[in-house]
Amino acid sequence: MSQPASAITPRRSEDFAEWYQQVVKAADLADPSDVRGCMVIKPWGYGLWENMQRDLDAMFKATGHKNAYFPLFIPLSYLAKEAEHVEGFAKECAVVTHHRLEAAPEGGLRPAPSAALTEPLVVRPTSETIIGATYAKWVQSYRDLPILINQWANVVRWEMRPRVFLRTAEFLWQEGHTAHETEQEAREETEQMLKVYQTFARDHLALPVITGEKSAGERFPGAVQTLCIEAMVQDRKAIQAGTSHFLGQNFAKASGIKFVSRSNTQELAWTTSWGVSTRLIGTVIMAHGDDDGVILPPRIAPAQVVIIPVTPKEETRAAVLDAAKQLATRLQSQSFHGHPVRVEIDQRDIGGGTKSWEWIKKGVPVRIEIGPRDLEKGTVALARRDASPKDKSFPTTDEAVANIAATLQSIHDTLLERATVYRDANMVQIDSYDAFKEFFTPKNSGKPEAHGGFALAHWNGSPEVEQRIKEELKVTIRCIPTPGTIPGTSEPGRCIVTGEASAGRVVFAKSY
Amino acid sequence: MSQPASAITPRRSEDFAEWYQQVVKAADLADPSDVRGCMVIKPWGYGLWENMQRDLDAMFKATGHKNAYFPLFIPLSYLAKEAEHVEGFAKECAVVTHHRLEAAPEGGLRPAPSAALTEPLVVRPTSETIIGATYAKWVQSYRDLPILINQWANVVRWEMRPRVFLRTAEFLWQEGHTAHETEQEAREETEQMLKVYQTFARDHLALPVITGEKSAGERFPGAVQTLCIEAMVQDRKAIQAGTSHFLGQNFAKASGIKFVSRSNTQELAWTTSWGVSTRLIGTVIMAHGDDDGVILPPRIAPAQVVIIPVTPKEETRAAVLDAAKQLATRLQSQSFHGHPVRVEIDQRDIGGGTKSWEWIKKGVPVRIEIGPRDLEKGTVALARRDASPKDKSFPTTDEAVANIAATLQSIHDTLLERATVYRDANMVQIDSYDAFKEFFTPKNSGKPEAHGGFALAHWNGSPEVEQRIKEELKVTIRCIPTPGTIPGTSEPGRCIVTGEASAGRVVFAKSY
Repeated sequence: MSQPASAITPRRSEDFAEWYQQVVKAADLADPSDVRGCMVIKPWGYGLWENMQRDLDAMFKATGHKNAYFPLFIPLSYLAKEAEHVEGFAKECAVVTHHRLEAAPEGGLRPAPSAALTEPLVVRPTSETIIGATYAKWVQSYRDLPILINQWANVVRWEMRPRVFLRTAEFLWQEGHTAHETEQEAREETEQMLKVYQTFARDHLALPVITGEKSAGERFPGAVQTLCIEAMVQDRKAIQAGTSHFLGQNFAKASGIKFVSRSNTQELAWTTSWGVSTRLIGTVIMAHGDDDGVILPPRIAPAQVVIIPVTPKEETRAAVLDAAKQLATRLQSQSFHGHPVRVEIDQRDIGGGTKSWEWIKKGVPVRIEIGPRDLEKGTVALARRDASPKDKSFPTTDEAVANIAATLQSIHDTLLERATVYRDANMVQIDSYDAFKEFFTPKNSGKPEAHGGFALAHWNGSPEVEQRIKEELKVTIRCIPTPGTIPGTSEPGRCIVTGEASAGRVVFAKSY
Repeated sequence: MSQPASAITPRRSEDFAEWYQQVVKAADLADPSDVRGCMVIKPWGYGLWENMQRDLDAMFKATGHKNAYFPLFIPLSYLAKEAEHVEGFAKECAVVTHHRLEAAPEGGLRPAPSAALTEPLVVRPTSETIIGATYAKWVQSYRDLPILINQWANVVRWEMRPRVFLRTAEFLWQEGHTAHETEQEAREETEQMLKVYQTFARDHLALPVITGEKSAGERFPGAVQTLCIEAMVQDRKAIQAGTSHFLGQNFAKASGIKFVSRSNTQELAWTTSWGVSTRLIGTVIMAHGDDDGVILPPRIAPAQVVIIPVTPKEETRAAVLDAAKQLATRLQSQSFHGHPVRVEIDQRDIGGGTKSWEWIKKGVPVRIEIGPRDLEKGTVALARRDASPKDKSFPTTDEAVANIAATLQSIHDTLLERATVYRDANMVQIDSYDAFKEFFTPKNSGKPEAHGGFALAHWNGSPEVEQRIKEELKVTIRCIPTPGTIPGTSEPGRCIVTGEASAGRVVFAKSY
């Protein structure tokens, strides 16, 4: 049986990696730039980020955080303060060595040798060290704690194999940095922010992430504990979609964040950091997209409804455009999760079919066509992006307006349900290393890697076994699941590699 | 007569520059950082920027613009494309020359010699060149125009004499970049965005800016025309608070933004750019602050009302706190310019006097004290930041709630009125170079420079005269005022330096 035509070539099943690139392009989300590893985020892609920012920001503020802004540059010596941190982060950074350009003798420009910096500056790959140095100045007494601050910023990590949204030299993110009086308070903060991320992923992005703790080998450099949310995408790989770190007193010690305690002793503060980035956009694309392009979760879609006026005849054109505008106004007066419904009218002078396909590829949740015959009948043609392009319903205009919030919510629910079913179907308990290897061996010779997905397996807790699996199969421990969240993972068993005792199963997967 | 005590030392009249630094510190707006010329924007200062962003962003979107994001780094060769631009901007930049660090033989870290970039990258001082290169790829036909995009971003211009908010190596801003089919459309865009800035300054920041065009000498490097808004602050200097540039076809030519026109010819696009930055925060501080600290325009104040519960006795404490919370909820349910009123309750366990003075220094528009006796009477004690710290009114709680939006608007109106009166009193017509020199000569020997202010004087239009005045008096042409906006500037006269004919008066001032 031949498959129906799809708007994106190749299909997901043919070449997932290439499908991803083509989907990003077809949806007008981003462009690679001439600057190696850096991307241009186009308005449609940036609109997704703006909506994510707005919603997350409200959640951060509701949990008592405020925003601030810290310098882009970090002195070289700061990075060296925390030994593990520098080991993990100092490798691939953008290094500023000069502060002036001059005309080069051979023509063009060059960094002026007379303007070499005495201490080079690193473009922040993350801000623990520079923010720690600042907090050290702000904190004297327990009365100055907690500090609950978030920053929206750009960061740079030089990438050898960049991939738009997923792994780029420069990316946008938020980084929360908090300092506390007690270990317990800092641990509670770390867990609270993980829950915020999980809730955001589920309720705003329709992503059923799993939560857990990273193994020592996968931990943030310098952290005592790294919690994470992990999403499964449609090639069954994992994407780390957000992390929340309990930093203990490591960075407080390195930066000198000390305070006089209630019992009048000098103590080190307990700190945390947590972040999500524009990588979430890549995750949403890979988790929900189909062979016709992206499917945007309604809460973050820059436009939730597009109205396409159908104007075949000049004499009915004005009436149709008028009706389209009225409909837009009525839809905008409806509220979806506390915000007015976002509506665009596509009045461009091109064919209706071309328009429809453009919006399908862009992933707009709801398309509404309105033409002269609809005007007569008082109806519209409504298509949902989570259904086949040909599936349309024909509600009255009043019904379409009254039900728009419910329709958008239903699309969200469908996406979440689909992703959950997919994840659960591809997350299995594995009890031998042979079965484990088989699970992660691609089932077809070509692309994509149609391997198994998430393996729930016992592990003896040793970095050596973890390393061996990583080297042999490119499979890593995504997390030690939060107790009670994945059925059957809390029972003891035997390590699939060594046969040694294991307290519970961990989640193994290939990952981005 | 001795002056009453002030919360800030020194007073504005004693040392304006030092007053500014102390005000920023006392209001908890920002800190200098260890990174030369970079600032840390603290939550209270960043809250101002967030509110400015939200309001400006809505105005940009209402005029048809969308946000996008372009790379932080610009290849060296891009900067060299537009000759005037490189002359004006290539001087003081942060230059990235390496992409990796390694352990230095002498200990610590160093840029890895093996990771030197073939082409150094400049941290964007402004993005015309990188955005131009992108638009060149996006534009093929007149159907792709206009492009109406804005970016919220950080930029870096190495500064030898940094000053928090006013002149820092890194600062936050927005930069609009548009491309158009015709010259007229691009010119209209340039003027439209200037009006947006003027409206924003007046209605959101209570700043009565003057508008006009820059002389060739003060123009943005590469622009055909630079329009600006200029504010007068309380040492009578000018601050350029926003600019809107008509770039003609200069950058389109340098970047290759070409399109096939309606008449099927190959044309260069017409482009504009426009921006405001965190410098606006410095402008607001210097324009409205008094000897007790900053006075925040209500629309951008992070908190518009602070409630200070007065709890002298333990037995009434709970009732007072309860009343404070109820009052906060009622105030928050009121709307000011379409947003819920922003209220904080200061429950800290410190003296009421200390609290009040902290909020005065932070510039909160309205302070409300509520104590046991107020509860009995059903009143509150309300103080406005635009009045003396001792002036209080005693409305009933119901009145305070019902009138809060009017009170905030009245504070805004007072600030705008004061700044307008101050500006007009210090903006005078000057008709001889002797009088001009006298006007710009400080009237007291110490600080501040209590010189005249804005001089409206005739100028022959020559760069030589402009340069001479700049060298002799450190006075520059702030703008050639928009015709009809400043009375008496459109009549012809004689240049104060050469006696040659002049079509109208221009605005001269010392500036930041």
